[in-house]
Amino acid sequence: MSKYCKVGILGASGAVGREMIKILEERAFPISELRLNASEKSAGKTVGFRGDNIEIKKTDKNVFNGLDLVLGAADSKTAKEYAPYIKEAGAVFIDNSSAFRLDPSVPLVIPEINPQDAPKHKGIVSNPNCTTIVTLVAISAIAKETKIEKIIASSYQAASGAGAEGPKELIEETAAFSEGRTYKPRVFKYPLAFNVIPQIGEEEYKGYTSEEMKMQNEGRKILHLPELAVSCTCVRVPVIRSHSVSVLIQTVEKISPLKAKLIISQAPGCKLYDDIENGVYPMPLITSDQDLIYVGRIREDLTFENGLNLWCCGDQIRKGAATNAVQIAELLI
Amino acid sequence: MSKYCKVGILGASGAVGREMIKILEERAFPISELRLNASEKSAGKTVGFRGDNIEIKKTDKNVFNGLDLVLGAADSKTAKEYAPYIKEAGAVFIDNSSAFRLDPSVPLVIPEINPQDAPKHKGIVSNPNCTTIVTLVAISAIAKETKIEKIIASSYQAASGAGAEGPKELIEETAAFSEGRTYKPRVFKYPLAFNVIPQIGEEEYKGYTSEEMKMQNEGRKILHLPELAVSCTCVRVPVIRSHSVSVLIQTVEKISPLKAKLIISQAPGCKLYDDIENGVYPMPLITSDQDLIYVGRIREDLTFENGLNLWCCGDQIRKGAATNAVQIAELLI
Repeated sequence: MSKYCKVGILGASGAVGREMIKILEERAFPISELRLNASEKSAGKTVGFRGDNIEIKKTDKNVFNGLDLVLGAADSKTAKEYAPYIKEAGAVFIDNSSAFRLDPSVPLVIPEINPQDAPKHKGIVSNPNCTTIVTLVAISAIAKETKIEKIIASSYQAASGAGAEGPKELIEETAAFSEGRTYKPRVFKYPLAFNVIPQIGEEEYKGYTSEEMKMQNEGRKILHLPELAVSCTCVRVPVIRSHSVSVLIQTVEKISPLKAKLIISQAPGCKLYDDIENGVYPMPLITSDQDLIYVGRIREDLTFENGLNLWCCGDQIRKGAATNAVQIAELLI
Repeated sequence: MSKYCKVGILGASGAVGREMIKILEERAFPISELRLNASEKSAGKTVGFRGDNIEIKKTDKNVFNGLDLVLGAADSKTAKEYAPYIKEAGAVFIDNSSAFRLDPSVPLVIPEINPQDAPKHKGIVSNPNCTTIVTLVAISAIAKETKIEKIIASSYQAASGAGAEGPKELIEETAAFSEGRTYKPRVFKYPLAFNVIPQIGEEEYKGYTSEEMKMQNEGRKILHLPELAVSCTCVRVPVIRSHSVSVLIQTVEKISPLKAKLIISQAPGCKLYDDIENGVYPMPLITSDQDLIYVGRIREDLTFENGLNLWCCGDQIRKGAATNAVQIAELLI
């Protein structure tokens, strides 16, 4: 790939797509042309990029011609539909959807963890699930010290995980509640304001949802640990855009909380934020609109040998999606 | 104790105290006199009970004379201060604070689990922590089938757990946020609106908070399992009054999800609410203002042998505090 790339964004009008544009600008990604595509509904809108206004065009099979790189911020169906045309155009497709994540020929990459997998691509690199990214970045430094055998996680996922309409619905619904008006949710199955919803995705495996199985299936691939066992409970909470996760890991060798703190404090992409005595721990309030995964509440597990508990929190749209995709693009140029 | 009791409520003006009055009326508790006491601040207010208006009087050491039973809804300090006077007056003290819960001479009782312990009291019976009650009621039927060895829990605790001011602050703060006004929290350490706070209580043991250690220490006593190991992460979420808990238990003998569902469906105090395909699982939205603990998302754990995952949810002020205390009183008369 040449130093200055022609870049396309598929699904440019959604929450992740818009954030990708912002991050390409922020990180001064070497771009000679930026093409924005989305569904017919968003076609004609313009988006500012480096002082220019770029018009969003309706996606069709010809829009990828001449591009070097396509960042995918659309859903799985759209990703599957256009992947062949992106390939035909000779562009590399960095896709944020779940469409190709478990395809053995497609690298699934968190640049802080498995950058070496990215160049092995055959035209597609997948961006992992947002909760998986937040959790794995938090524990990746430990995974480099000793093998992680088991992960037990309960998530506290923000409305932003459901796309741009998620936070909008939560804010509108909360206002309606405050004013005593009724509000019919459209994005979430139930009202999310002042509630928590213990279902994200549909049932996939033995009572676990698709979202819950991602941490195991994607985690195995990213960490190169085919035997990794993960039990996950994914819960939507009334938060705008950062995901939090309560995590227990069991490792082959014992890692003391002190050692875990030391290695997490030096881990790329992580910020050790752990001093409960002084009220220092990760919260959505402080982790949104940035790329670092905050890690705190690190303590020895009281139930299992070689168990370690921690709490992590990170911006779902940025590091959980858009930033990770742009970082993958940076690995490839 | 005679069939009609003279009952006092210590801390009658707080969230739990007010709920106790409501529940005594609802359950037609045999009362010949109800005396309401609270701090000076609330003295003089009146509360309706069975058509009468009862005035709240300032607590002093003489207010318990002649009572048979005192329900404690005050904090630990107040409970400790007045316990000797309640004893001197010859009344039984059913205390909701944490003051006496781990005292070996004080029974700690969830009536669905260990009613046999209540009559062994020497003047005081303690009411367990709210998150502990919600979790243990959910798993108690399994504990009767086989020994529970380990519990891993992550909680999603409502604002009501911080007393009557908690929900008030959350609602005011949320409205302020909606209107773009700043709001300085007084009850919680950080803003709770659109945030989650992974600290409840102060640090007590190896990085775990006092709230997190309650499930282990109280759980051991209630279940008569002195070796029970519990790792807990307690998190405050922007919910008004029901607590939810993501729970993993490890048992000595394997309990299949099907068997767990069957026994939970018949367990006292529980409502099996488990059909993810049709969006049926416990949520604060549906469990508030009632006494049942809803249990769902029951599935085999994917990480540990004989592990079972579930999600439970119950009204923190009712079954998590006031109702449980009144049920203990019912055991004693």
